[in-house]
Amino acid sequence: MKNVKVGLLGLGNVGKGTYKILTQNSEKISVFSNSKIDIAKILVSDVNKKRDIDVPKDILTTDAYQIINDPQIDVIVELLGGIDTAYEYIKASLESGKHVVTANKAVIATHGMELMNIAKENRVLLLHEASVAGGIPIITAMMKPLCGNEFQEIIGIVNGTTNYILTQMSENNMEYEVALKQAQEKGFAEADPTSDVEGEDAAYKLTILMLIAFGVYVDPKIIPREGITKISKEDIEFASQFGYKLKLLAGAKNSSGRLKYYVYPTLVPDSHPLASVNNEFNALFIKGDAVGELMFYGKGAGSMPTGSAVVGDVVSVAKCIGTDLLDVTPSQPYPITEEELELTGESKSMYYINFLVGDEPGALGKVSTTFGNHGISIQSVMQRSRGLADVPVVYILHETKRYQLDDALAEITQNKYVKEITSILRVLS
Amino acid sequence: MKNVKVGLLGLGNVGKGTYKILTQNSEKISVFSNSKIDIAKILVSDVNKKRDIDVPKDILTTDAYQIINDPQIDVIVELLGGIDTAYEYIKASLESGKHVVTANKAVIATHGMELMNIAKENRVLLLHEASVAGGIPIITAMMKPLCGNEFQEIIGIVNGTTNYILTQMSENNMEYEVALKQAQEKGFAEADPTSDVEGEDAAYKLTILMLIAFGVYVDPKIIPREGITKISKEDIEFASQFGYKLKLLAGAKNSSGRLKYYVYPTLVPDSHPLASVNNEFNALFIKGDAVGELMFYGKGAGSMPTGSAVVGDVVSVAKCIGTDLLDVTPSQPYPITEEELELTGESKSMYYINFLVGDEPGALGKVSTTFGNHGISIQSVMQRSRGLADVPVVYILHETKRYQLDDALAEITQNKYVKEITSILRVLS
Repeated sequence: MKNVKVGLLGLGNVGKGTYKILTQNSEKISVFSNSKIDIAKILVSDVNKKRDIDVPKDILTTDAYQIINDPQIDVIVELLGGIDTAYEYIKASLESGKHVVTANKAVIATHGMELMNIAKENRVLLLHEASVAGGIPIITAMMKPLCGNEFQEIIGIVNGTTNYILTQMSENNMEYEVALKQAQEKGFAEADPTSDVEGEDAAYKLTILMLIAFGVYVDPKIIPREGITKISKEDIEFASQFGYKLKLLAGAKNSSGRLKYYVYPTLVPDSHPLASVNNEFNALFIKGDAVGELMFYGKGAGSMPTGSAVVGDVVSVAKCIGTDLLDVTPSQPYPITEEELELTGESKSMYYINFLVGDEPGALGKVSTTFGNHGISIQSVMQRSRGLADVPVVYILHETKRYQLDDALAEITQNKYVKEITSILRVLS
Repeated sequence: MKNVKVGLLGLGNVGKGTYKILTQNSEKISVFSNSKIDIAKILVSDVNKKRDIDVPKDILTTDAYQIINDPQIDVIVELLGGIDTAYEYIKASLESGKHVVTANKAVIATHGMELMNIAKENRVLLLHEASVAGGIPIITAMMKPLCGNEFQEIIGIVNGTTNYILTQMSENNMEYEVALKQAQEKGFAEADPTSDVEGEDAAYKLTILMLIAFGVYVDPKIIPREGITKISKEDIEFASQFGYKLKLLAGAKNSSGRLKYYVYPTLVPDSHPLASVNNEFNALFIKGDAVGELMFYGKGAGSMPTGSAVVGDVVSVAKCIGTDLLDVTPSQPYPITEEELELTGESKSMYYINFLVGDEPGALGKVSTTFGNHGISIQSVMQRSRGLADVPVVYILHETKRYQLDDALAEITQNKYVKEITSILRVLS
């Protein structure tokens, strides 16, 4: 049995999980990898820091290049997070002929194409199953057992923080700020939650998913996105009465060569498998032309679930070491078909609109008529009296183009009885 | 790019799906497999039969050994179904040095260990992703990205026929016979549905899942199982009122070295992800020590979904052809740990019991007292008056051993007010 030496960059949350799995389950892992896998060196910021994990002190170092330049080490596992330093280390590792496994969605979404090319030139692997949805093996599934499919659509709940907040708002009737605070207390949200709640994290993951599913690179910066900070519990209640759950979706759909993609808080019908994905869980719903609808559900973050995906990649690398490597690994970089797909962020969607309307006879009729005049048909409407002069009126609209909706809303807001558009949300159809 | 020649045994439902995918999506498949994959020959029962698929007639043959002995062919894809003939052909193919891909759960569950050994001796692959849950890539997921996990539990809805019938009984208030007839009309059940409705098909799949998840071979014949033919719509209604859905589950659980396994109609709590898997869909719920809870959901049968899994395996084989094959493929046969696991079909379970009881004061009290005397505690009880002398009384019991339950039931049925035990079902806990 061959020996495979791993250098770990980072011993934070995911680093500890990876270390635990590789040591606790080493017997099974050696059978499946046909290798004895050793963690030879670990990069830390402070060698003497007290840790809640038992790691031999002599393998710790604060110098990344002691690991990257060590000729004994076969695989670098990058678990630092962030972009610039991680990118530098991954690039240097690949260039020195080392395989790399990473959980870093930001680096892969930002520099993935370049790094995949460097990996290819150096005949090494760069694997990143853990970069999307933690322990859910969505990347391997699309690259291997499902690779015979042309994918038509992929919709993910890929951010556990926002899903936890939206679930708590829904189940415990909380406002956003209260649910965010609770998520922070429970460790499901960071002190600065911006990247999660504004949808940036989900956009990184969507870029990676589109690369795998459709073979196109879409810069995460150009993905149309909205976060969840403006969602009110009132909207969640209305959605529930209409038969929907509100979820932050990262989606991409290939409609006859046009690729639509987005990160939006979206009303998901109760009957859809994604509607019952709650709290910190993630899920990926995909449609392939052969397999039809599939959903994968599991923990999208955390020390051990993310470590599980990292270890799966380390085993894949270990199996390949000493073999005719490039013939048996996934094509790298992914086959790019950009020229064939027209990228289009926006397209038709169903919408949920919440207006604040003066409680006057005829107001509702006028709004409805205006929608009709703009060619927008109404699926349902609900008016709730709050015992106040102004009442919320909520519409669910059939599929319409955004510019048509904007034209209609511009006209509607000129109506003196319409005080405010409280929210505009997409509805999954 | 290398050429890979495939011989297809069978051009039925799954054969046609496999043929369609390999031809329609050949461009993508060639990129992912690094091969040009050709279907060189196809075994059929009648070359001149009219088919709803466009296949060149000159590649059809009625002689399996014209394919198996063809030195040009690299991979045999067995899609005949049944046991004896399929077993013979797979064995002969492996012995003649050909890789084999099969969707045949019965052969793998019955002869898998022997065939895996023959494959190993001949340095070829025997892959069978399609043998469990059709298009859901559960086998690859457990063997590859999740292989760092020790699996603790696996629970599957792996038979679409029974899930369709139970869903229809539940949603449309049908009795079993009516739902079965509808399933047959819609093509979800065969003319002779015995293997599906009696749980045999699910037992085959469970044997394969246990092989992958726990590295043990459990003969499908010794798996304790019950079918769904005695399920009444009354039981489904009661279950629903208690907050459960009735599903045919195939499960296995490793509790500190004791492996419990079963195929039973089971009450699944509404909050469990498996509860919302409806109609012909399948799902696998697994727990790993690192990844935690995962669920995979999708189509478990059908021409294209099953073909999707077959094609995934063909691509895996194609990638390996011409390389240092055995070092990079899953260990074959699966590492067997039988000596470490005590196999035990039965163990503690929660139960649902439906009695027919004479409408006499005190009858309910006596039954409840008897359960208590036998150390069985009651979670809930429901009595429904039907305006008749005898009324159904339903108990949900906390976890108990089956012999304790049987002792209690023997005593209870001696009570003259207890007319009949209508049903005994397990409850997932």
